[in-house]
This record gives sequence, C-alpha cells and structure tokens, in this order.
Amino acid sequence: MTVRHSSPLRDLTPLFEPASVAVVGASDDPVKWGNWLARRALRGASRRAVYLVNRRGGVVMGTHSHRSLAELPETPELVVLAVPPAALESAMDEAIAAGTRAVVVITADGDAGGARDVALATRAREAGVILLGPNCLGIFDAAAELELVPNDLPRGSIGLLSQSGNLALEIGALAEAAELGFSRFVSLGNQADLEMAELIHELSEHDGTELIAIYVEDFRDGRAFARAAEAATRADKPVVLLAVDHSEATARAVRSHTGALASEGAAIDAACHAAGMQRVNAPQELVDLAQGLLGVGPPQGRRVAVLADGGGHAGIAAALSSDAGLELPALSANLRQTLRRRLPPSAAVANPIDLAGGGESDIRNFDRTTRTVLGSGEVDAVLMSGYFGGYTDYAETLGRGEAAVAEALADAVAETGRPLLVQTMHPEAAAAHGLRRRGVPVYRTIERAVGVLARLADRAGRRPRGVPALPPPAEPIAAATYMDARSLLAAGGVPFQPARVVSTAGKAVTVAEEIGYPVVLKALATLHKSDIGGVVLGLRDERTLAAAFAELNERLAPPAIAIERMAPLDEGVELLVGVRWDARFGPVALVGMGGVFTEVLRDVAVSLAPVDEAMARALLLSLRAAPLLMGARGRPPVDVDAAASAVAAVSRVAAVHPEVAEIEVNPLLALPQGAAGLDARILLRGAPPDDQV
Amino acid sequence: MTVRHSSPLRDLTPLFEPASVAVVGASDDPVKWGNWLARRALRGASRRAVYLVNRRGGVVMGTHSHRSLAELPETPELVVLAVPPAALESAMDEAIAAGTRAVVVITADGDAGGARDVALATRAREAGVILLGPNCLGIFDAAAELELVPNDLPRGSIGLLSQSGNLALEIGALAEAAELGFSRFVSLGNQADLEMAELIHELSEHDGTELIAIYVEDFRDGRAFARAAEAATRADKPVVLLAVDHSEATARAVRSHTGALASEGAAIDAACHAAGMQRVNAPQELVDLAQGLLGVGPPQGRRVAVLADGGGHAGIAAALSSDAGLELPALSANLRQTLRRRLPPSAAVANPIDLAGGGESDIRNFDRTTRTVLGSGEVDAVLMSGYFGGYTDYAETLGRGEAAVAEALADAVAETGRPLLVQTMHPEAAAAHGLRRRGVPVYRTIERAVGVLARLADRAGRRPRGVPALPPPAEPIAAATYMDARSLLAAGGVPFQPARVVSTAGKAVTVAEEIGYPVVLKALATLHKSDIGGVVLGLRDERTLAAAFAELNERLAPPAIAIERMAPLDEGVELLVGVRWDARFGPVALVGMGGVFTEVLRDVAVSLAPVDEAMARALLLSLRAAPLLMGARGRPPVDVDAAASAVAAVSRVAAVHPEVAEIEVNPLLALPQGAAGLDARILLRGAPPDDQV
Repeated sequence: MTVRHSSPLRDLTPLFEPASVAVVGASDDPVKWGNWLARRALRGASRRAVYLVNRRGGVVMGTHSHRSLAELPETPELVVLAVPPAALESAMDEAIAAGTRAVVVITADGDAGGARDVALATRAREAGVILLGPNCLGIFDAAAELELVPNDLPRGSIGLLSQSGNLALEIGALAEAAELGFSRFVSLGNQADLEMAELIHELSEHDGTELIAIYVEDFRDGRAFARAAEAATRADKPVVLLAVDHSEATARAVRSHTGALASEGAAIDAACHAAGMQRVNAPQELVDLAQGLLGVGPPQGRRVAVLADGGGHAGIAAALSSDAGLELPALSANLRQTLRRRLPPSAAVANPIDLAGGGESDIRNFDRTTRTVLGSGEVDAVLMSGYFGGYTDYAETLGRGEAAVAEALADAVAETGRPLLVQTMHPEAAAAHGLRRRGVPVYRTIERAVGVLARLADRAGRRPRGVPALPPPAEPIAAATYMDARSLLAAGGVPFQPARVVSTAGKAVTVAEEIGYPVVLKALATLHKSDIGGVVLGLRDERTLAAAFAELNERLAPPAIAIERMAPLDEGVELLVGVRWDARFGPVALVGMGGVFTEVLRDVAVSLAPVDEAMARALLLSLRAAPLLMGARGRPPVDVDAAASAVAAVSRVAAVHPEVAEIEVNPLLALPQGAAGLDARILLRGAPPDDQV
Repeated sequence: MTVRHSSPLRDLTPLFEPASVAVVGASDDPVKWGNWLARRALRGASRRAVYLVNRRGGVVMGTHSHRSLAELPETPELVVLAVPPAALESAMDEAIAAGTRAVVVITADGDAGGARDVALATRAREAGVILLGPNCLGIFDAAAELELVPNDLPRGSIGLLSQSGNLALEIGALAEAAELGFSRFVSLGNQADLEMAELIHELSEHDGTELIAIYVEDFRDGRAFARAAEAATRADKPVVLLAVDHSEATARAVRSHTGALASEGAAIDAACHAAGMQRVNAPQELVDLAQGLLGVGPPQGRRVAVLADGGGHAGIAAALSSDAGLELPALSANLRQTLRRRLPPSAAVANPIDLAGGGESDIRNFDRTTRTVLGSGEVDAVLMSGYFGGYTDYAETLGRGEAAVAEALADAVAETGRPLLVQTMHPEAAAAHGLRRRGVPVYRTIERAVGVLARLADRAGRRPRGVPALPPPAEPIAAATYMDARSLLAAGGVPFQPARVVSTAGKAVTVAEEIGYPVVLKALATLHKSDIGGVVLGLRDERTLAAAFAELNERLAPPAIAIERMAPLDEGVELLVGVRWDARFGPVALVGMGGVFTEVLRDVAVSLAPVDEAMARALLLSLRAAPLLMGARGRPPVDVDAAASAVAAVSRVAAVHPEVAEIEVNPLLALPQGAAGLDARILLRGAPPDDQV
C-alpha cells in the first residue's frame, strides 16, 4: 500500500523554483552522487543560495560546507538527500525539523511501495512537505537554472517525467541530437508521495513546457493519470507516453477471452485513446515524434507528396509511406505542368516527385518544388528524402547555398501552414541545422520520417475520446452462474433469447412449447461450453429435444441444464463483448468479431468503460473485419446500432460492479434487426480461474 | 525490348581488375563527373596504367591527357565514358575500335531499355565487349584499388549492386558508420548488357565478398535473378535485397482476387523465399541486417535473454523482443542463483536481467553475466541494452576498463558460438568500437537491435525453398469459360463436384437425378457470381430446382446455367487458390483462407510456381488463420493433404500455360476427407478486365 493524498493540486514552486537549496551528502569524491549533484546545484548559485551539507564539514567543491541542516544560516526551501540508506530517516527528520518545504530523495530505500516508503511519505504529509522519490535521479528546471541531477541535460521545451534514470539520460541524448531539450525533468523514483498525475497537471500549466514526455512503470491510479493527461492534451500540450506492457502470462491467470484480450497493455492503449496520449515503444520513437509535434504539428489529412532527387530515394519513401497508411495522390495535370517547367525532361512529377538530377543542377528546385506543391492544396504534407544538405560544396561552387534553400523551405511551411518533414543522409549539415532551427523536423533515416508523418496524420482532427467517469457502485452480486449473469445483464439492457433452467426432459418439452422451437440446450456450470459438447443446437421438435436432453445428462451429468430459444445464427455475425476490471485503469471494455477473429487474429478494440452507444459503435467499426458488419459478400448488413447498444449496456453493468473481475457476452449475435446475447459469463474477483464457478 | 545474352557466365576480370583504364571525358572542372571519376581512377595508378582522355588534350589533373583513345600508347582494357549524351555512340565506337574489353558508360542516353540502349548493347555484344550502364555511377573494387566512382566509399566485405547512385552513397555512409564497407560496388544503370543476375553470380564467386547487397528497380528475368541469388545463399553468401513494390493500382487493372493479392510485391517476396534472400525496405535496415549477418550470424533459435543495467532499458528491450516474436524464457533456478552471486539484491535475474546498478558498481558484471547466460544453453542469444560504453570515466576511476569488458564479451560469443547483440546510447565509445571490431553488432537504438535479432532468428535453420524450374509450355488454351477452366484443372488433378451445363429446367432435373441432390445452380459468364445472386445453393428437390432455374433465367438471362452437386459447405473450410503469371517472375502461386480472411485481412501466402505438395502444405500452414484447418473451436480438422494436393495441381496447370494471366479456384473447399473446387476461373493474357469473358 502507498499513501494517497487527497488534493492533486499543491503548489510545487518549492520543488521547481526554490529560493534556496541544500544538498545533503555533498562530496568531493568524483564517483559519488553527492558530488555530481552538488556540482550542478552550484550552477544556480547566482539565482539562489546553495548549501552543501557534509557530515564531516570542511571545504567541498571549493565552498564551505555545513555539518547539518541545523547549522545553515537560513531554512533551505528545497533539500536534496543523497545519503546512505541507513541515514535516510534521520536526514528526513532533520529536513522537516529545519522547516524545508520540499525534499528530493536520491537515496534508495528498498522496494518501491514498501514500509519505508509509506513511513517516509506519512512523515512528509504530516509536515506539509512535498516529497519527490525516494530512489530518484533528481529534478531539473531549465528556466530556473535548477540542476539537481547527476548529468548534464539539454535545454528545450519538453517536460520529461520518468521513472527510469538511464532512460531519461538516453532520451536526453537523443533529444540533444535532434536539437531539442527539456524545460523540466522530474525523476519520480518510487512515487512515495508525488505521483505522475500531479506532475502532469503541474506541467500542463507550466509556460515553458510545450510537450509532456512520460516514461512510467507504475501507473498507480490509472484513471487519475489519464484524466491529468486528458487535461494536458486539451490544453494543447501533447503527451507522449513510453510504457511497457508487462508480461501477461506471469502476471495473472487468464480466465476468459476478455481477460486474455483486454490485457494490461490493452488497458494502457485504452487510456491513451481516452486521454489523447501518443503511445510510443522506445526512446528514439519518443524523440522523433516530439520533433514532429513541436515543429510542424499534425497535417490536415493523410495526403502526402514525396520529393527526392533520384528515383531510388523517391521510390523507397513512397513505398514506406504507402505501407504506413499515408496516401500519395497523383498530382493534377496543371500542377505537374507547373513543376515540369524548371525540371529536367526525365523528372517524374506525378507523385512521388523525382527531380532526376534537377536538385543537383539547381539546388533551388528543392524549395521551388516544395513551395509549389504545399501551396497547391493537393496534398497535406511534403516528405523530402535523400541527399539534401550534402550538395553544399557543389552548390556553392555554382553560386547558390543550401542554407538559403533551408530558409526558403521553412518559409514555405510557415506560409502554407502545411508540414514538411525531411530525411537526409546529411543530418549534421548546416542546412539540416537551419531546418530544425525553424521547426522543420529532420531525420537520418526514411523509416523514422515516415513513421512520424503517419503518426501525425493519425492525429489529424482527432480529439481525446475522454476519460469516462465511474458511476457509484451498485449492490455487489454474490452469485455468478450463467443464469445470474443473464439476469444482471438483461436488467441492464442487454437483449437475450428467452431461457429457463429445467431439470427433466418433460419440463424441457413444456418450456420449448412456450418459447417456441427451434431450441438450444446448454449444460450449465462448465466454462467453455461449446468446446466440450455442452451445447446442443437446432432442436426442432419434441423427439430430438428429449433425446438430446437425455444424452447431455448422461454424457456430462451437469448440475443444471438451460433451454433457450435458438437465435437465427445464419443471419447474423457473432461478436465478443466483454469488460475486465484492470487494477490500475478500472473497467476496460472490449469488442471483437468473435471466434477465430479474436482468438487467432486478435482483431479487437478496447476502451475505458463505461462506453456510450456512439463510442460502442465507433469501436465496432474500427475492427479490421468491420466490413462483415456492413454486409460483405452479398449478405445483409447487421443492425450495428442494436449491437452498439448491447455493448454499451454490458459496459454500464460492469462499471457499477467492481467486484466483477471479468464479464463477457460471447457471442453477442448481431442480426439484421436487433441483437441477441447467446452466452454470458461473470467472474468474480478472487474466483478460481477454472471451470468450477 | 532489351537485348538478352545467352551465357550468364562471362569472365568479368576486365571490369573489376583491369590491367589498364582510360577515362574518357576526364576534366579539371570540379563540378564535372569526368573530374570526380578521374581523380579516383588515378588512385590506382600504382597498380595499372590510367589514361585520361579529353577532347582538347593538354594537362588534366596534373597529368598528360590524350585527345582520343586512338592516341593511347596501348589498348586500355577498361574504358569509362563520361561524355555528353550526343557524343556517346561515337565514343563507344572509338572504344570498340581501340580493342577494349569492357566499357563503363556513365553518360545517360535517355529512357532505360530504349532504342539507344538496345543499339549500344548490340554493338558491344557483337564486339565481345562487356558493357556496364549506360546511366550508371561507375564501379569499385576495394582489393584491386579500382575506384571508378564519383565519391569515396568505405572498404569492407559487402558486395553492393545498385540501380540507384544516391542510394548507394547512402548505404555507403551508413555502412561506414557501422564500420562496414564494400568489397565491390557496381552501379548498374540501365542494364543494357550486364544485368543483376550475372553480377550476382560473379560476386557469389568473389573471395573478398562475404555478403551481397542489392538495390534493384528493374528485375528483368526475375527467375534468373532468383536462381543467381539462390546459388549465392547456398554458397553461404547472404543476399540482402532492397526492393520497392511498384504501385499496383496504376500498374494494371485487377481482375481476380489472385490478381490483386499475388501482387508484384508478393512476387518479390515469393522470389526471396525461393532464393533465401533477405528482403529489406530501407537503407538503414539493409546495413543493420548486414552487420548482424556478417558479425555473429543467425542464432540456433528464438530464445533470447535481455540484459541491462536498469529496469527501464531491460523492460523496453524485453517488450520489443516479445512483440517481434522472440521468446524470453524464464531462466532456471540454478542459473538465477549463479547470476545472483555477484549482483545487488535488487537485481532481476529471471529474464529480462536487470543488473540494478550492478553494472555501474562493477563493470565486469556485464561480461560475467553475459558469459554465464550464453554458456548455459538456456537461450540462443543475448541482447544487451542501455548505457554500456558510457561508464568509461567512472569505470576507469574504479580501475577497470570498458574496453577489456568489450573484449571479454566478444570472447564469450566466440567460445559459446551464440550471438550477442548490443544496443548502446554510446555507439561512438571505444568499447562499442571494440565490440564491432570483433564482429559483435552494435546499434544506437533498441528497435534496430531487436529488429535484426528477430530477422536473424527467423533464419535459424532455414534453407532456401528453391527456385522451381518451369516445365515446357503445353498446347495453349483458347477458350476460358467456367466449364473450360473446370476441365483444364480437373484434368490436372484438381477435384471438382460433378457438374453439367443445362439449357432447360427439365434437363436440370434430369441431371440432378443423375448426380444426386442437393444441387447448386450457377449462372455462367458472370465474373463474381456470388456477389450478384448468380448462384443458388441447397436445392434439395425437383420443385425447388425448377423454380430456382426459372427465377435465375428471368433475373439474369445468363448465356448458360450450370448445375452441380452441392458440397457439404458446413463441414469444410473455404480456401482461395490461385496463380498469377508475373511479367518478371513467371507464375506465382497464392493460397488464402477465402472470404473475409483474404479480402479484408489479407491473410495469404505466396510462392513461385509450380509448388509440390509439401510446399503447398507449408504455405497453407503458414496462414495466420491456419488453426481453422487444424480443427479450432471443436470442429474436425480438415484434410490438409488433399487441399495441398489440389493447390499443387492448380500450380502445375498454371505453370504450363503462360498464355494464362490468372487462374483461380475460389473457393476450394477443404473437407475432413478430401477437397472440392467450388468455382474456377481463368483469365487469358490480354482478356478484358471485366465480367464479359
């Protein structure tokens, strides 16, 4: 257990812009953290008092040090603790006693969330002190010249929140290579007190931060995290999230299809959709995307023109763009004619555009062509690929400079409002620097440039789905048999076929006459009924019904048998609908096409629950196999509204029952008119992961 | 049309290791090709006579130049032509008259494959002269010190054959950054005479070349290309192919599902499988894979241990590896215990391995841990990720060097025969250089390292499928109606249900009594019969058959109606089987799961045709939806052998009918016993791409 605080909106000024700082554990030993931190803390000495505290006192890093916080001439607003683990609690006490307002704990105190974490956080809360860490790398604020970190970091407009120190350093190195840097950096460590959500809120209101980058391992309250990120994205501060799916198999037993498919990784994806976060899988991808988001932002659509001086670069860029889902429209005859005027006869101008030596022979063809194409409105973006930046010697001999071309390219972007992304084999050239300085993203490899452009195009016109509010819990359910699940879901608005539990063949026949043939028999209390022959379909008369009842009883000896009116299977499409309560993100809804589509092809869509009808519809239509719903191959289209209504109903029921681990309607039969749940399962939290429910 | 030569195995020594060279068009003007080429040609002057030819004569590049080839004191074995386009033919005549044995034509002469190309090639062939180009960048041989190229290139063991000059420069720059380079480089230009296949053969027998890298736009005789590549891979020279799929939509009208799915890109993939080539999509991917293939080669299997000093790097590397299809087995209790001995208590050792500061505190933990894990046999490879290379100052202060660790890591690879791949944020560090020098691949980003390891693991134990020989053509067919297609395929061994063309309802009833109910009616001469209601299924008696016949006639007025015994659709799985004759690669066979699987999910497998039964079986089982064939969800498995036999039969029929553009059995119903073709289509070359066959 970790201690949670009630208000997420404390004043964090003492942390980012303290009037004074003390580094406890400051040292002259160049292989100690206390040395690395103190050296950089002193860089802010013109802005604030910086006190070095060392048990032995004396001169440290050329300045007078103090033996304890108590000896300081004033109360340091921020205290950094880089002390041995055994001395941590006493150092914390000393800091609190000195009246400090914020403490950054570098020292590791054992397991995250352990007893020492809890005690430390409790002590800080009681004293009204902000606590960052323990087990963190420190804190950095470029504008405040606050460098309480062990390494030099580049300055810029990215606010980085990271749970890993080395990853933060890697992101810093990659950002620097892209001529980007950090407005603020916070290493969160164990999050004993300060958590991600509070820091996201803080950065979303911080003027110097234009983009928030996050590496997180422990989401804590995932909904609070997602709400904070949603607020940031709505305030036009893009949030880029680097997060890893933890291995599912080791984490928990899988109990239903929903349980397997609405995985922890899927829950993170659902949170990203809700909050408008951009999820990435590696540091380079994070920095590449940040370059695109900060520089040119999303294009209006997916139409792109590829431009290169040489068919090889043009062809590869075009093929990768097309594979990434971008569109390469053929340019109009008029536009082609305009482009041709300055280019060699062998140039290709339909799209991709190959200058065919026209760039080498006249370097201005790069910006002239780009400006004409961006200005035409026939595409939403231009992707330039190849050798640009490497013509310098040659181009200058001919009296024209690539630097001027870079400026003209950036001008064309500014004037048209349409993005240009550049891949060049000369990313260190002055022209590449000139482009980046003006916000035009430059990448060394074409796959990275294409990846970013495709991601930016995905964002075109997108708003966050919104993090749904959780309704207050309903009365918890205690029993979760098939009939219980049906009743609960039916009461919530999920349509089912008429059904009854029967104990004898005679009773079955009586019920069948009531509900109408054909009917289905189901042996209850087994989990994957259709896999063991526990369901008998298509019973059309009394004789076959009675025989099937007897056979089922003999073969499986089930505790109970249900009889149901059979739905017209041939007329519909089978869907899988389920909700899993995730430990961090709460209820996560999942829809899929059922059967082999979900199990083999993993064609599913997820969202934080509850979802409304419109969202449910959007999820269904986002499936790769969605054409099946719309009437592929001569079949009638199904009633997507009815299916969506059932999905929304399942999600609402799940959302008010936190005692439910997993809930599933599989299949939900989507019909040309209406929908029908053909099976229903509920797994209560803590129930055994097997067939014996 | 281009001129083809009969023998692919000429002696190319005059091209790569000429005794003497003449550069025609040599110039002092630093923005001219003749300058760039001459400057580098002269670097080989200690090995061979290098003559500069310039129309105006005089001193060029500090040496005496000649006005024409006729003036040279000896016959130059190799002549390079960098002359204005208008002077090309006369320069060629002059070279031939001088008795040269090989000509490299830099000059562009217009469209590739155009009349000038043909004339040039004919002239060269008649004179017994090897012709490279025209419109090429030149030729390079590191061992022979032959640099007839406009740029400096790194030396190494990669033989590069490229149709694009700028891409070759980009590959060169990326190779140099990876401390790799070229044994030979050939810029092919228009391939008027020398084609890829002949050069692949040449490089596969060249001692200095350990890997062949190819960028190609025009495959020419694709089967010859593939056969050459197969010979190289069988001679343990990996072939890495960078090739772009040309846009399908613009290239040709799509006439059948097979036509759409067995695309030009799919044909390239089929050729890669046949020849054992590794296909890549971008220059960086090519160089990254080359680094892996040249350095450590494929592991024995997919099991990998991830090693990092820090949970962030470990977690990201593990997640990406898992996403890429690599396995991360939990290490045994014994091995974990061994690893723990030297590591901090917070280290994770199950896999991924997180040294948790144990690398920073003792740098030898990197090589000790790697050696122990590689030696254990519990994994096939180790992937190291993170900060290694950046500990140098710190590590040396503590008296240990990263360079020594790099050597020990390379020793561990050499001794265990199991690969190590390294991702580091310090790729320029001495330790990274030391690793690369010993063949351990080093990458700047984790996604690239993981991508290469996954590709290498895919190759584990793989042999090329082999490029199938094309049988001699059979008597061409002239008619291609539905019944023609059935007959041709049935004669080739494809099973069909009994069927007959009937003209009246009465005749239909008579036939139905012969072949047995239930039957199917098909309105013939429409292409996508099932999409327009031209097929009526499940006719179980005379009355419904007669009614359906009348209704079909009235609604569609088809030229003919076929009646067929209906197959048991519910018992089987529908497959799509087809062959498309590709202009470059000949017949390409395709199998898919039919319906939405092929159309929406594009779950198909392709191979050069003909395929035998074993290959057909392998193709079927490679489908993502293959579990459907093996009896997923309680259904009986289908007779995969019978389906494979039908696939092989379709491919054999297509292979002897080059006049057929596309041939398709869709669906082929795979049954628990046997298989049955339910429809068949043939499109003749040049037939209109519509329903009016």
